[in-house]
Amino acid sequence: MSSAATARRPPPQRPVIAVDAMGGDNAPREVVAGAVRAVREHGLRLVLVGRTSELAPMLAAEGANRELPIVHADESLAMHEGALAAWRRARSSVAVACKLIRQGDAAALVSAGSTGGVVASSTVRLRTLPGVLRPALALVLPTVPRPTILLDAGASADAKPEMLVQFAHLGAAYARIGHGIAEPRVGILTIGSEPGKGNKLARKASELLSAHSDEAPSLDFRGNIEGHDLLAGLVDVVVTDGFTGNVALKSVEGAVGFAFEEIRAALTSTPLARIGALLQRKALRGLRARFDSDSYGGAVLLGLNGTVVIAHGASHARGVAQACLLAHDLAAGRITDQIRRSTASLSRAPSWLHRLGQSDE
Amino acid sequence: MSSAATARRPPPQRPVIAVDAMGGDNAPREVVAGAVRAVREHGLRLVLVGRTSELAPMLAAEGANRELPIVHADESLAMHEGALAAWRRARSSVAVACKLIRQGDAAALVSAGSTGGVVASSTVRLRTLPGVLRPALALVLPTVPRPTILLDAGASADAKPEMLVQFAHLGAAYARIGHGIAEPRVGILTIGSEPGKGNKLARKASELLSAHSDEAPSLDFRGNIEGHDLLAGLVDVVVTDGFTGNVALKSVEGAVGFAFEEIRAALTSTPLARIGALLQRKALRGLRARFDSDSYGGAVLLGLNGTVVIAHGASHARGVAQACLLAHDLAAGRITDQIRRSTASLSRAPSWLHRLGQSDE
Repeated sequence: MSSAATARRPPPQRPVIAVDAMGGDNAPREVVAGAVRAVREHGLRLVLVGRTSELAPMLAAEGANRELPIVHADESLAMHEGALAAWRRARSSVAVACKLIRQGDAAALVSAGSTGGVVASSTVRLRTLPGVLRPALALVLPTVPRPTILLDAGASADAKPEMLVQFAHLGAAYARIGHGIAEPRVGILTIGSEPGKGNKLARKASELLSAHSDEAPSLDFRGNIEGHDLLAGLVDVVVTDGFTGNVALKSVEGAVGFAFEEIRAALTSTPLARIGALLQRKALRGLRARFDSDSYGGAVLLGLNGTVVIAHGASHARGVAQACLLAHDLAAGRITDQIRRSTASLSRAPSWLHRLGQSDE
Repeated sequence: MSSAATARRPPPQRPVIAVDAMGGDNAPREVVAGAVRAVREHGLRLVLVGRTSELAPMLAAEGANRELPIVHADESLAMHEGALAAWRRARSSVAVACKLIRQGDAAALVSAGSTGGVVASSTVRLRTLPGVLRPALALVLPTVPRPTILLDAGASADAKPEMLVQFAHLGAAYARIGHGIAEPRVGILTIGSEPGKGNKLARKASELLSAHSDEAPSLDFRGNIEGHDLLAGLVDVVVTDGFTGNVALKSVEGAVGFAFEEIRAALTSTPLARIGALLQRKALRGLRARFDSDSYGGAVLLGLNGTVVIAHGASHARGVAQACLLAHDLAAGRITDQIRRSTASLSRAPSWLHRLGQSDE
């Protein structure tokens, strides 16, 4: 394993990140530019995976042939390709990058390809960590003073209560290593603030999480979170199934976009208001930057044998560089080992195991 | 039945609306004021249900004793009371109002009490229409040029695919009668734009709705809707289960509130920006009014033997009056009969019945 190999060398080498050069609306040009930026500005160790004939000239144009090795991959996943197609293509750039991770030649994968395709392809090729039932996709909401992590954002549409308990651990590990939150507070997304509210899945998961956090105080479970609290920063990690999580995240995105657009229209609806808008240009620009997907690096697929960061499909160079930096931080913090440890402790807790058997309805 | 009775008289009398005078954060004062307004400004026929000793002096102060009869109810549901407590209290103002509907003395109920309490109390007392499996709570999103109706917003947390098909009919009837949308377009809330995406429930419901709208062209089913399209006005009715619907609606509410607050902060962050904000005061005020719950009347519980409109708990007089107007329009449009007809046609379609049997997994 590469982590064991790096541990032998003083000082430890930085983990290698495999970058899918062919994924994304602006691939390969913006991906290559982002990778070059990540190497030069942040000193990361990257390999580009994709068609050599396309990538080599682009690297040459940037004078970066020596800084960035290319690993050839014949094919790429189209942005519209679904999970099944992604799963089949063994020679896609995502599949080849997963192979590098399996061989220990890379610790993480960054792709701006279609979320469904990257999730399907990397799940089947990297497989889940021992004991982890399903991977979860974690996304970051731009709350202040610190971000809120929501998972699962869509990797597993039909979940079981035990999976949600595991997602709590995956999310807590990500909050610690990816966002420097020492003791992440975890909540479950449901439809009522009191215990016992919600649908069957949320009620059961909440019960398991309460029992579990009594036994394993490493998990700071704070109970129920409602939709209107997603941006209120009440907890650091919000756990839910992939269907509800995806609907909630897209509802938030849509509503924030809608509100901005409505306010923009209102602010320029009269000549006086337009003068006002001119005076506020700088303040509004700062706000927009916080909601810009290029600034927070992308979604992370957690629970696999290797770290997978999925940058926004429309990412430009800066977004790709941020995603590489996030992948590096997670790999350097050994998130995979951390998750392995916390999910291993799950199956050791006797009453947890007992309850796990009961909940399989 | 009051509808048969009114049909005998030329011209037909307006339906009577029973108003729960004791429900809401500002009850009974603002409810009484709203009811008086509804009678005087819109010519509605109302009865107030609640403690006579409290209500009579308030009506006297408004000089409205003759315009608004009181039906006495000893008890009221507290805003924090859950479904179970609501269900038990046979002498609450909501329970007494339901009794008026059952006796044919009122056609609809308006309450600003706690949603959970009113839903539980009226569901058990009015019961679902023949063939309707569960009631659904419909809420209006302030899209332009016409509103979007989302249901179920939380009445039934664990739903079956067949219920979602019924919700489509309930929502379409509400769109036609409550919002004057002649041929409402219906979509299902899920997590992908292509058919076959989503969790098991949404996939199966989507399949049933497609098959069903081929057979019953009265339902214009337009397929999948994602979270970010909730405010885009792509369809007039968005169907989902009560858990997902409640999470989505609260996520939208929270995100719009968050965006407004952030923009307000950005607009007043520098002296120049503050001058700009002054110039825009009027434009922003107009926008805020569109998102004000007092302007759209409240949620409607559909599928029961009687119309139930649940105004926002924080409603003031204007909000209560709007809710009364909505209840009147729905009752006058005989929404209950319309729903009875459309759900009766459901069970007549042979292949629909066939599929219904299969889907019970």
